[in-house]
Amino acid sequence: MPSALLSHPFMSAAALEACRDDAYVQSMLAFELALAEVQEEAGAIPAGVSRRMRDCLEGHAFDAMAIGAGIATGGNAAIPFVKAGRTALPEELKRYWHLGATSQDVVDSALMHLITPRLAAIDALLVRCRSAALGLMRDHDETPMVGRTLMQQALPIAFGVKVAQWALGLEAARRRLATILEAGLPVQFGGAVGVHSGWGDQGLELMEALAERLGLAAPVLPWHTDRQPIHALATALDACAGAAETLALDVSLLTQTEVGEVAEPAAPGMGESSSMPHKRNPVHCALMRGAARRLHGHTGVILSATAQPLERGLGEWHAEWAPLSESVLLLEGMLEHAAILLEGLEVNAERMSTNMAITGGAIMAEPVARLLTPYLGPDAAKALAAEAAEQARRQGTRYVEALEAALTDRQLLSRDEAALTDRQLLSRDEDGDGLRRGELESATDPALYLGSSKAQVERAARWLEGA
Amino acid sequence: MPSALLSHPFMSAAALEACRDDAYVQSMLAFELALAEVQEEAGAIPAGVSRRMRDCLEGHAFDAMAIGAGIATGGNAAIPFVKAGRTALPEELKRYWHLGATSQDVVDSALMHLITPRLAAIDALLVRCRSAALGLMRDHDETPMVGRTLMQQALPIAFGVKVAQWALGLEAARRRLATILEAGLPVQFGGAVGVHSGWGDQGLELMEALAERLGLAAPVLPWHTDRQPIHALATALDACAGAAETLALDVSLLTQTEVGEVAEPAAPGMGESSSMPHKRNPVHCALMRGAARRLHGHTGVILSATAQPLERGLGEWHAEWAPLSESVLLLEGMLEHAAILLEGLEVNAERMSTNMAITGGAIMAEPVARLLTPYLGPDAAKALAAEAAEQARRQGTRYVEALEAALTDRQLLSRDEAALTDRQLLSRDEDGDGLRRGELESATDPALYLGSSKAQVERAARWLEGA
Amino acid sequence: MPSALLSHPFMSAAALEACRDDAYVQSMLAFELALAEVQEEAGAIPAGVSRRMRDCLEGHAFDAMAIGAGIATGGNAAIPFVKAGRTALPEELKRYWHLGATSQDVVDSALMHLITPRLAAIDALLVRCRSAALGLMRDHDETPMVGRTLMQQALPIAFGVKVAQWALGLEAARRRLATILEAGLPVQFGGAVGVHSGWGDQGLELMEALAERLGLAAPVLPWHTDRQPIHALATALDACAGAAETLALDVSLLTQTEVGEVAEPAAPGMGESSSMPHKRNPVHCALMRGAARRLHGHTGVILSATAQPLERGLGEWHAEWAPLSESVLLLEGMLEHAAILLEGLEVNAERMSTNMAITGGAIMAEPVARLLTPYLGPDAAKALAAEAAEQARRQGTRYVEALEAALTDRQLLSRDEAALTDRQLLSRDEDGDGLRRGELESATDPALYLGSSKAQVERAARWLEGA
Amino acid sequence: MPSALLSHPFMSAAALEACRDDAYVQSMLAFELALAEVQEEAGAIPAGVSRRMRDCLEGHAFDAMAIGAGIATGGNAAIPFVKAGRTALPEELKRYWHLGATSQDVVDSALMHLITPRLAAIDALLVRCRSAALGLMRDHDETPMVGRTLMQQALPIAFGVKVAQWALGLEAARRRLATILEAGLPVQFGGAVGVHSGWGDQGLELMEALAERLGLAAPVLPWHTDRQPIHALATALDACAGAAETLALDVSLLTQTEVGEVAEPAAPGMGESSSMPHKRNPVHCALMRGAARRLHGHTGVILSATAQPLERGLGEWHAEWAPLSESVLLLEGMLEHAAILLEGLEVNAERMSTNMAITGGAIMAEPVARLLTPYLGPDAAKALAAEAAEQARRQGTRYVEALEAALTDRQLLSRDEAALTDRQLLSRDEDGDGLRRGELESATDPALYLGSSKAQVERAARWLEGA
Repeated sequence: MPSALLSHPFMSAAALEACRDDAYVQSMLAFELALAEVQEEAGAIPAGVSRRMRDCLEGHAFDAMAIGAGIATGGNAAIPFVKAGRTALPEELKRYWHLGATSQDVVDSALMHLITPRLAAIDALLVRCRSAALGLMRDHDETPMVGRTLMQQALPIAFGVKVAQWALGLEAARRRLATILEAGLPVQFGGAVGVHSGWGDQGLELMEALAERLGLAAPVLPWHTDRQPIHALATALDACAGAAETLALDVSLLTQTEVGEVAEPAAPGMGESSSMPHKRNPVHCALMRGAARRLHGHTGVILSATAQPLERGLGEWHAEWAPLSESVLLLEGMLEHAAILLEGLEVNAERMSTNMAITGGAIMAEPVARLLTPYLGPDAAKALAAEAAEQARRQGTRYVEALEAALTDRQLLSRDEAALTDRQLLSRDEDGDGLRRGELESATDPALYLGSSKAQVERAARWLEGA
Repeated sequence: MPSALLSHPFMSAAALEACRDDAYVQSMLAFELALAEVQEEAGAIPAGVSRRMRDCLEGHAFDAMAIGAGIATGGNAAIPFVKAGRTALPEELKRYWHLGATSQDVVDSALMHLITPRLAAIDALLVRCRSAALGLMRDHDETPMVGRTLMQQALPIAFGVKVAQWALGLEAARRRLATILEAGLPVQFGGAVGVHSGWGDQGLELMEALAERLGLAAPVLPWHTDRQPIHALATALDACAGAAETLALDVSLLTQTEVGEVAEPAAPGMGESSSMPHKRNPVHCALMRGAARRLHGHTGVILSATAQPLERGLGEWHAEWAPLSESVLLLEGMLEHAAILLEGLEVNAERMSTNMAITGGAIMAEPVARLLTPYLGPDAAKALAAEAAEQARRQGTRYVEALEAALTDRQLLSRDEAALTDRQLLSRDEDGDGLRRGELESATDPALYLGSSKAQVERAARWLEGA
Repeated sequence: MPSALLSHPFMSAAALEACRDDAYVQSMLAFELALAEVQEEAGAIPAGVSRRMRDCLEGHAFDAMAIGAGIATGGNAAIPFVKAGRTALPEELKRYWHLGATSQDVVDSALMHLITPRLAAIDALLVRCRSAALGLMRDHDETPMVGRTLMQQALPIAFGVKVAQWALGLEAARRRLATILEAGLPVQFGGAVGVHSGWGDQGLELMEALAERLGLAAPVLPWHTDRQPIHALATALDACAGAAETLALDVSLLTQTEVGEVAEPAAPGMGESSSMPHKRNPVHCALMRGAARRLHGHTGVILSATAQPLERGLGEWHAEWAPLSESVLLLEGMLEHAAILLEGLEVNAERMSTNMAITGGAIMAEPVARLLTPYLGPDAAKALAAEAAEQARRQGTRYVEALEAALTDRQLLSRDEAALTDRQLLSRDEDGDGLRRGELESATDPALYLGSSKAQVERAARWLEGA
Repeated sequence: MPSALLSHPFMSAAALEACRDDAYVQSMLAFELALAEVQEEAGAIPAGVSRRMRDCLEGHAFDAMAIGAGIATGGNAAIPFVKAGRTALPEELKRYWHLGATSQDVVDSALMHLITPRLAAIDALLVRCRSAALGLMRDHDETPMVGRTLMQQALPIAFGVKVAQWALGLEAARRRLATILEAGLPVQFGGAVGVHSGWGDQGLELMEALAERLGLAAPVLPWHTDRQPIHALATALDACAGAAETLALDVSLLTQTEVGEVAEPAAPGMGESSSMPHKRNPVHCALMRGAARRLHGHTGVILSATAQPLERGLGEWHAEWAPLSESVLLLEGMLEHAAILLEGLEVNAERMSTNMAITGGAIMAEPVARLLTPYLGPDAAKALAAEAAEQARRQGTRYVEALEAALTDRQLLSRDEAALTDRQLLSRDEDGDGLRRGELESATDPALYLGSSKAQVERAARWLEGA
């Protein structure tokens, strides 16, 4: 139902094109032809057979619809496909077709064969995201904005650090997936019950040769009901999705009308409302967040299907196909959005600055309290810092002025204008001279209270660049 | 990807046909035309507008592919659809098109409109299952088979009771879904933010009229981010899936080569192996169990998306579309298999009987122990019952003979052949005459130890028939 | 691990107290004693037995720890409990203890027995929520605030409608759960394989009598592997959690520092930060949202365990216990927070009003465009409405002034001050006199553009009150 | 509720003991003391402070119950713990306590600190499983049993290969987890918003020193809302659970009364039924499968909580605690059962042999068909092979005899007794002499048709031993 209209928009159009039904049929064919070739090389079938098979079938127009219909009786796509292939072969070649293989060999290998280039495409998108993020990180390693915990304004950070957090998540997930891609997705070849019935020890050699020919990895053993490779792959995809979802969640929140610190890149028609002319919806984020939820659901199905009975699943295996293949397409789609977002993100530093002021300075109450502690003790210091912020917010004055007034009352303020680094706030001790006005200015200036932000951006950049 | 080959086989072909992209577009059109009609009736737009709109668009060939492509910028199918509809209208009608509605009104209402007939089809399949099950229950209300707990043979039951259990689950789930179908799926109409902006109180009247015209229910209020209707629907579908999955699980287990008590209905090509001529795979069960796993995953996505923010979801709403619509198709597919299974299930009563013997009678050790308790005390009774079973299994004799031997040694056996009902086993007390041989025969005969099986079948049948 | 510190805070303390291990043991005992009583009444065991059993065991100090330890070998709590009970009985009563029952009878019935009063407590909390929400709805049926879709400001609504949406979700879920509570949770009694082995037809009578005595419902049949009752219960709990989560999500968003339209009720120590004196964290929301996520996870486990094999689950049944019982405790905890939130929610109508102004009026661009359409056509009308909003935002003027300027340029504005209802915006047509200034004032005033808000509050209130 | 009786039995008792509430409090304390120590070393707080702090608090009796109760207002365990710690310190030390840290630093670090030794225990259990499996593999590398696909008998395998499959899954998962354990779980230290507010660049140095002192890893940056480390850990735990669940599923199926090829190790009281003396329930399997289901549910919660907003989760973070910590305890419990199962598994080779005969030889129909193909063509060969099997099953004769009869009729059988290796079956071609009787014997002997089984066991053993 509505599978196209309700499901595909979340997926990568390029990937959908590369993975249409025909492509899956071609992957099944690639498996069968490679199988004949390695068997011929091993002397198990007569010379010339694999060539003639390829000549017959390479251009053959398989009817994907008919194959689809055949699944209802066979239980998987390989059964009608193998029949269709056999029918298309001349009599003398039929007996060498699908020789010693089982449906699961075909289905699993074809899926791994089809997914491999998608993983490469996903990796490339993640590399694009990393590059774009590195640019943003460096441009904004000193751009102050407010950090928010439990969605409440807390203390300042540099915007570059937020970008670094997105980038670290995406890159950690990329490396996890890259490890799998580099090791190679495994070929499946074990025959009816996974022990190469009828082949003896030669079975393992054929499995290795087949892996090489298909550009896949050779597993230790056929893995019909050992679904660890699928578990590792699916959860690595999910990790990528989770990292991209974090980006989408943050952008969704920062792009709220009342916050407005970032905006999705503008593009014609993008995000327009069907009824409200003034509105620009964060459509990239909505599609990414929608896709992520579906992907997590798919991963859950795969986790629950990890344990498969005896020598072949009875439903557990079948349940993997759609979730795994859709997860790949959903993730590729998400990352296309993520790359666009990061490459074109509109950053509004002015708004970041304005937003820091809306609490009347209260977000600086913590450093101020630290500064006052040697003079007042921790509790009174906290109380005074908080009251002055409330005062400033109500009267619309600057926080520092409210503090000065309060401290002057208490005769705690000297005239010295010397400033103070943020690191001094913790070690500074009462020195008999009272607080310097300049210290107070420093302690209430968010831009001077970015902690290790700049160093964090540098450190993250080094790691992202692999140094 | 492989969405057709890897995903559709689990779905109902009839439902897929009824829910193709075009059908979804037609449902969106039905919403918009009905909207114009009720607005015209309410005097909110000029007379004749809705008729001319219908004339223009009813036969119009909407391009579903183009609509699909438009989702990437709009974020949902309604936006490109509304554009396409507006383009197809003459200038003077454009301003009355989609008047006062928002994308979510279109998408939600169209989905409810499309799903309603599927729910009726699902109900009909469940009614077919119920009929078939009632037949099986009555045919087998005294057919003894062994009951198995934790997959170990335990004590006898009638096969009819097992069928009754399947039927009760299916019918309980059917009634739950029927309640929803009878109340009607709700129309969605609230405008941009759900309060009928620009319509005043008339908005609620339009909502009611629209519901009636579309054959949907009128909700209390527009339900843009109150997803309780979706939660109730999705979990009711999941309940049906769980009930059908129970059937598939039991059949999978009972059809194992070593058990062989039931078999899937035979059909040409059904369940054949791509490599093993002797094998008949339980394909109905495999597809049902695969579909159920996917459906549970979809339900999980919907549960997690129940809470949606403010006046429209940002990804949460989008995440519902595919899981909900696919769940309907998966369930209808599952139930087609379930009906076939129940209508054609091969029941092998002989094998049920044989299987009860393989423990040498040990499954009757519990009633025997009860019988012996008044003579030996509970512990010695249990021990003797168990030892005799082990003896019988090793020597290949009947359990009753092993027991007779043991009891004769202990001089506990009288010659009386009078039998004993199973209910007497609990209340019978030592009467001085010793155990009667006939009692022993009774106590070791599974067919006499079916408890309330027959009464259970009757009771269940009454409930199933709604009495 | 950390089960107390990391898990319990999300749960209701009152419920935890009512459901401690001892209480579960007492529920198992209640089942066994009631069983003996109904058997005695039915004449199946000697008169006086049940009384003596109760005298022995009612005050007996069962060792819950030892019972817990015994599960590792028995596989469930009933097995060590039944042993402990038998040991505590005098020799002559032992044979009447747990007579004809199986572990699952005890475990399932005890769980239903323990949960029943929790459902009543949950219902009471939901009634409290409903009352509080009704108060808020009525207080704010005309309080304008901005509606937000995809977290962007869209058009005005009344705050009372938002509360009504929360209330409808909570009440719909409450009614769903109430239906289950009113029907009663079902007793479990079927013996070893569910057919009352050894009892004959009397088994069903005992089941009914037992249900009545325990205050539970009598099911059609024993439901050992028909888990529809658990599915219905768990998904109804999940629906309640989803409704409460919606409230928490909205409050989290509306309480953001930059939004500030509502705040959690203040209480000593509530929501304080370990490092920032100025901060008040929305702790009710955080705990509710955390609990909801866990509850959805639990529900997922139960959905996947709906299908259980043959006459007893092999892990599927066992997997239900903790998720089901914890879901009850999590939900009760969530609703305690929800009631506190709704009863003490701080509503800042002034802030709602201020926030509507931050787009320079752009949120009113849609009604303005409607108003201008008869004069300019839909496209030019939309464009002018949007441009004026942008103008107003940049220059800091009122939207209506920017519009007047633009319309005066175009000579479209008359001097008439007559206002306009929001309903007229759609039907009003070009009348030759040009736009009246008063109409423009109306069209840009959010408080006049609340659509059916007030009627929605009334309609929802009627439904909530059950009329 | 019933958390102990209904939840703990699935968990490792040893792990529960090691992770009781007190232990979690001690881990929080370890974090705070280590923090003071590294700050002192860095000169950020006066010399001697950390020593005096440790003296004060190391033996201090923290009240875990009171801390638990404090979570309801604070929102996490760190807030009441930090308060309790501060209260217990003398006035002059209070200001150095929890200096520059935030709740999330404490909670995350304490959890990583507590979990680290559990991962080591899990690794050790997996090593035990591997050793036991290697023994079983070698003992049974030529023990024939029937392979089953979709739970139907298919073709022979060696039992050693099945064990190898279990072992490969467990070891692949172990290596995945070991990679995480070897890299070290990461410390958390970033202060209020993750940028070491008030510490400047020194923050990163303190983070590194703290990691070293606590035996944890130093992350690239504080990871407050970058939950990739938790995702990687939770999914690796889930992979281990899936591998163990596969073992439990297979043992559950092979131990069915009708199959009986393996049995759980016998132990006093283990698996006894509360009502049936003859029964031995596979309790290890039931508890393992129950635990696996719960663990998958927990993992799903963590996947969905990967994306956390801005600088601290609002519920997402809170939702992780119980699922992650319980997953560790559930997995450790599962693996204790797995080790016992593998170390004591009762293998019934005789029953394996008997079971292969129950189809009358039909499981050898595939090799027989291969053998006959050169003489009859593939279709007639398959047909004859299948018919003879059916004949044998009905008449209770050996398959080879039924075949001989059929082939003699067709004059295809020579008298030659020479046997045939299984590998010859595929390459053997019609040689003019007709089929040799000895060939027929070979082709119907399961023990000669084990394919690459022996080589697979060797290959798997090499990989398991890390060569």
